[in-house]
Amino acid sequence: MTSKELKLRKRQDYGYILEYRTRWSDNDMYDHMNNSIYNFLYDSVVNTYLIEKCGLHPPTSAQYGLVVHSHNDYFGSIAFPAVAELALRVNKLGKSSVTYEVALFEKGVEEVKSVGELVHVFVDRDSGRPATAGMNQDLRAGLQSLQVTQSKL
Amino acid sequence: MTSKELKLRKRQDYGYILEYRTRWSDNDMYDHMNNSIYNFLYDSVVNTYLIEKCGLHPPTSAQYGLVVHSHNDYFGSIAFPAVAELALRVNKLGKSSVTYEVALFEKGVEEVKSVGELVHVFVDRDSGRPATAGMNQDLRAGLQSLQVTQSKL
Amino acid sequence: MTSKELKLRKRQDYGYILEYRTRWSDNDMYDHMNNSIYNFLYDSVVNTYLIEKCGLHPPTSAQYGLVVHSHNDYFGSIAFPAVAELALRVNKLGKSSVTYEVALFEKGVEEVKSVGELVHVFVDRDSGRPATAGMNQDLRAGLQSLQVTQSKL
Amino acid sequence: MTSKELKLRKRQDYGYILEYRTRWSDNDMYDHMNNSIYNFLYDSVVNTYLIEKCGLHPPTSAQYGLVVHSHNDYFGSIAFPAVAELALRVNKLGKSSVTYEVALFEKGVEEVKSVGELVHVFVDRDSGRPATAGMNQDLRAGLQSLQVTQSKL
Repeated sequence: MTSKELKLRKRQDYGYILEYRTRWSDNDMYDHMNNSIYNFLYDSVVNTYLIEKCGLHPPTSAQYGLVVHSHNDYFGSIAFPAVAELALRVNKLGKSSVTYEVALFEKGVEEVKSVGELVHVFVDRDSGRPATAGMNQDLRAGLQSLQVTQSKL
Repeated sequence: MTSKELKLRKRQDYGYILEYRTRWSDNDMYDHMNNSIYNFLYDSVVNTYLIEKCGLHPPTSAQYGLVVHSHNDYFGSIAFPAVAELALRVNKLGKSSVTYEVALFEKGVEEVKSVGELVHVFVDRDSGRPATAGMNQDLRAGLQSLQVTQSKL
Repeated sequence: MTSKELKLRKRQDYGYILEYRTRWSDNDMYDHMNNSIYNFLYDSVVNTYLIEKCGLHPPTSAQYGLVVHSHNDYFGSIAFPAVAELALRVNKLGKSSVTYEVALFEKGVEEVKSVGELVHVFVDRDSGRPATAGMNQDLRAGLQSLQVTQSKL
Repeated sequence: MTSKELKLRKRQDYGYILEYRTRWSDNDMYDHMNNSIYNFLYDSVVNTYLIEKCGLHPPTSAQYGLVVHSHNDYFGSIAFPAVAELALRVNKLGKSSVTYEVALFEKGVEEVKSVGELVHVFVDRDSGRPATAGMNQDLRAGLQSLQVTQSKL
């Protein structure tokens, strides 16, 4: 996808959306949310989904996801005290890895503010190495239900 | 107030409450929200109130608040991905300073998780010095409407 | 100690000092380090000391410290990209609790920027309850060596 | 550059390196620095360079940089209380935009932990729009001195 195409993303392109109120410290000296905060929020919506829909329990689960790659395009700014909406889908699902697409919207504003991807590799807690038998069934089932068909990428 | 008394705080002791969804990175290695994050959220509810109810515009307002003192008691923990409720009141209103009381609740849980105070001194943007004529009328009016009577402290 | 007395603190009043480079996102809209960040840094110097000098291993140690109280006085501001110096001492050492005093200085500046206290209660990992037999010997020994005599409080 | 090639980056591939002590809250529930924190540090070394070597003064400069794109590859983890080294170079310098490459090393460890790129577009403060006449001379000169020749990309 080109940056130009991603800029056209709508809320209905995503299967899971959560509201996050921005915090005072999210704004930087330019009076808008700092670019690093987007990643905090991407990570938060991904992990909330994994916990609430895929059976992940971070302190004890036998497998958990490590971020190995991320990229993001920023189209517009958002500033405290606005409310952000974080939208999630799955673009690609491998044996032990998953590519999420996350978008940030501002409550009450139609245009998307940013779109990015995050790649998780699920590792075995014991070894810290990629899960050789692939991700477990709860993870796979939960992630599949957010996956978009190839034609919609 | 003793810590024991503060532990009995209820939502109805506060005049302004906002929901903040916790973020993945709020949790520390002990699988609960790190103590430093409480201050982030206290600061956020205070500044949201100042912006939405007291006419503060952080990038340009002639006066703004500097934190000169803070203290906090922690009674229980909260962990991502729970939703926090931040509750605010004004305990003391001086000429150019204000003492806020902020409490953190967890959505769906009755007992308060933490109660603290924050003291703002309003300074003139030009000088960076305490506002000699006192805080402006919009700030005072907005803060007065959150103030509790002495008997309820 | 009154706020006036704490304002006179010098680096030599503390037994352990670490440098922390400030980060872009530490500054808020008023172009100085946000008050919440002080707590991040206090927590960091305390935990670095516990790990490096008191045998704490956060992911596995049988005991770890929970913050139950904190307070802080802010005397002056510091702004990115300055380098902060975090200074630590122990004011009080109980059976299972410890009161740290932490101060923030700016590299190259004599006057202290802030002084606060943090109270840790050490809990047993298994129960999450205060360590009934008191903190372990490594913790106690390490913390004792940072303790100031009563007359110097 | 492929991810495989970036994994071979050495400190000498970069013209500007700063040390950042990690903070307690940088670690997440998996006992290593959270992926979002990398961006905080990337942003910090970029802005420190802009302030100290390119004449940027964030609160007042007529031009400042907005991040429009970022991407990052994570090769290994780092955990509090380690010290990070952030290494910076310029891969591409346009009329009003610049592509930085940033790498994170751990003090005392040879292999690189992560390599990413950040794209800044310099905008005029008055309009918030890309600087039509291009970035100013101080910025250009400072950034040119960190630029690597095409053959070294």
